[in-house]
Amino acid sequence: MNISERVNNMQASPIRRLIPYAEKAKKRGIKVLHLNIGQPDIKTPQIYFDYIKNYSHNIDSYSHSAGIVELREKFCEFYNYYDVNLSSDEIVITQGGSEAIIMSLSVIADPGDEVLVVEPFYANYKGFAGMVNVNLVPVSTTPEAGYKMPEIIDFENKITEKTRAILFSNPCNPTGAVYSKNEIERILKLAKKYNLWIICDEVYREFVFDNLEPFSILSFGDYSDRIIMIDSISKRYSACGARVGLLATKNKDFHREVIKIAQARLSPSTLPQIGTIGLLSLGREYINNIKKEYQYRRDIVYEELNKVDGLYFKKPKGAFYVSVLLPVDDSEKFVKWLLTDFNVNGYTTMVAPLSGFYVAKDSGKREVRVAYVLDDEKIKLASSILAKGLIEYDKLTKEEKLINV
Amino acid sequence: MNISERVNNMQASPIRRLIPYAEKAKKRGIKVLHLNIGQPDIKTPQIYFDYIKNYSHNIDSYSHSAGIVELREKFCEFYNYYDVNLSSDEIVITQGGSEAIIMSLSVIADPGDEVLVVEPFYANYKGFAGMVNVNLVPVSTTPEAGYKMPEIIDFENKITEKTRAILFSNPCNPTGAVYSKNEIERILKLAKKYNLWIICDEVYREFVFDNLEPFSILSFGDYSDRIIMIDSISKRYSACGARVGLLATKNKDFHREVIKIAQARLSPSTLPQIGTIGLLSLGREYINNIKKEYQYRRDIVYEELNKVDGLYFKKPKGAFYVSVLLPVDDSEKFVKWLLTDFNVNGYTTMVAPLSGFYVAKDSGKREVRVAYVLDDEKIKLASSILAKGLIEYDKLTKEEKLINV
Repeated sequence: MNISERVNNMQASPIRRLIPYAEKAKKRGIKVLHLNIGQPDIKTPQIYFDYIKNYSHNIDSYSHSAGIVELREKFCEFYNYYDVNLSSDEIVITQGGSEAIIMSLSVIADPGDEVLVVEPFYANYKGFAGMVNVNLVPVSTTPEAGYKMPEIIDFENKITEKTRAILFSNPCNPTGAVYSKNEIERILKLAKKYNLWIICDEVYREFVFDNLEPFSILSFGDYSDRIIMIDSISKRYSACGARVGLLATKNKDFHREVIKIAQARLSPSTLPQIGTIGLLSLGREYINNIKKEYQYRRDIVYEELNKVDGLYFKKPKGAFYVSVLLPVDDSEKFVKWLLTDFNVNGYTTMVAPLSGFYVAKDSGKREVRVAYVLDDEKIKLASSILAKGLIEYDKLTKEEKLINV
Repeated sequence: MNISERVNNMQASPIRRLIPYAEKAKKRGIKVLHLNIGQPDIKTPQIYFDYIKNYSHNIDSYSHSAGIVELREKFCEFYNYYDVNLSSDEIVITQGGSEAIIMSLSVIADPGDEVLVVEPFYANYKGFAGMVNVNLVPVSTTPEAGYKMPEIIDFENKITEKTRAILFSNPCNPTGAVYSKNEIERILKLAKKYNLWIICDEVYREFVFDNLEPFSILSFGDYSDRIIMIDSISKRYSACGARVGLLATKNKDFHREVIKIAQARLSPSTLPQIGTIGLLSLGREYINNIKKEYQYRRDIVYEELNKVDGLYFKKPKGAFYVSVLLPVDDSEKFVKWLLTDFNVNGYTTMVAPLSGFYVAKDSGKREVRVAYVLDDEKIKLASSILAKGLIEYDKLTKEEKLINV
């Protein structure tokens, strides 16, 4: 039976593909501290569940294909805080940020077209691009430079006649880098020069630390005609299972075309949208508290990882990730080993190997992403396990090398 | 700014694109009886809402990418009734049948590959295929033949080296045709001969009338390695807004590959899955009652439309649609006119022009789809409006022709 090239070429989710080893570890009675996925342990605000419980209709019917109007209006109010002036017909509610990115790529690119992506990037971009046959072309950042935004010339070197857009997340998953307004404006100018779209994933917008102020790329009004902003409530409100995301754009051509796709799949799930209307009434105080919590965790992660010998990383400024260069040859092997052959008093930890967050297979082989989605005590414990694991692993690999000599 | 060819070539949803005219009619105070979309007026069973209300976790977190295991197990039990023996790892829960079809097309076909589709077909297949650049090749049925399954030779005439699958729904949306076990087996034999996949959309499986027995294509065990079965709870449980669908297959290669896509988009919405676990505990009695209700409505629609002069159609055997040949040149113009220029005592009706359910633009121009998703009184009223509208429209077009002579 024929299986398409596009899925053959697709990697299994680098975040999820090691999960079977974690499951086996658990069956052996080992407790696994999961710092590998972006599923926070923070409670979803009760108002989300309350709004759904109080839903008064007796049919769970299709919503508008672009999402419930009241929800879109609530989002417009939300963005007003960032001096972004959107109307409800400039927003399309999607099944998480995931669907928003798949739809966006479909609308702006044909098979074989290219999209520049700041690397390392959220690994699932590869799956989305593969599904609609768009080629991701990496513009790389490095751990040594603290994963800062590449220079304009680095982008220009990758632009061809097939380039349609530049894609990145800000704050960046997986690196925790936060790009400044100046950096963003440089990219926007570049996009204008080469007539490219900008797809900016702002799922972690509010998670910026050390007194940085969150902003949206849509506040750059002069460039708004080429901006597609991606958002999601998953992280901000700890409601990943709602799968409520959106795309927002001032470009009317884009909107007209994306609505065709939105209509074909009818609508996003209705009840999670109802719950989100509740979430959006929470105001800034809730968000500020969440941000404080993650900053606190970031500080602990930073402090604890600093105690571990041989790691290289800089203090991340946003999101809830830190990417770390490990003193190992192949971080995926090490992560797997932590699950299959290592524990400290019945505990081990799981982080995400970073190679899947790069386009080329041999890139990022020594890096991992640590998601600080657990509470302070668990983060401390996981860090000490990582430290002890590295020492033990180093000993083992040296012995192995000696044997192989 | 670049807009892709694929979306440029995509039609706006033929079911939804006339909605602005309906909205305008409502603003003028006209009541519109909607027989154009598959959104039933029947209540979603209370147990769906109860299960969601009683959800005891305080985080709405990602589910398994293939859907909640308990839900998949419930579906396995559900299919047992049809002598289909599935295990939970042969099912992937999707965002409605829509996502199941998009995923399936991605897995079995590359851009430029062809999928044969029994025509007329559910219009949104075009959008799904367009999004992933798969070419739909029609194998046509006709109103004159009661839209019965085409002959094998009709399929064979369309098979090329690029053909990857045959796609159809059974019972058929939009025609209401129900294909027999014999007809299905013939198609399966054909698929085997040419090594093609079969994608069978069974969203309306249980809605078969006149003592027909529902069955699933997966009961043909000898062919199960090439079958992808699509399902959804939307119609069966009147829960379109849940967006809970699935794909089921015994083919392990397909499953391994589709999981990559499922993992990339993380998971379907969690709470609607919880509600669906409740729905699946309802048993056959609920389903039998729903089927009776639709058979009753089908009988009324049939009786009422029979009173209307100049219509051509056969008694549909399943789903909740009937496709009807109208005595007009262009059914889309007529449907639009019903909304913009016609009413009977402040009421008008809306049906779906059928041209959008065909691949070629000039096909199906005189047909419409009537969805009997309203109660008996409303169906009677809508039918009489349709009858009066046709008489009035006929008069107007004759006058117009006289003027134009």
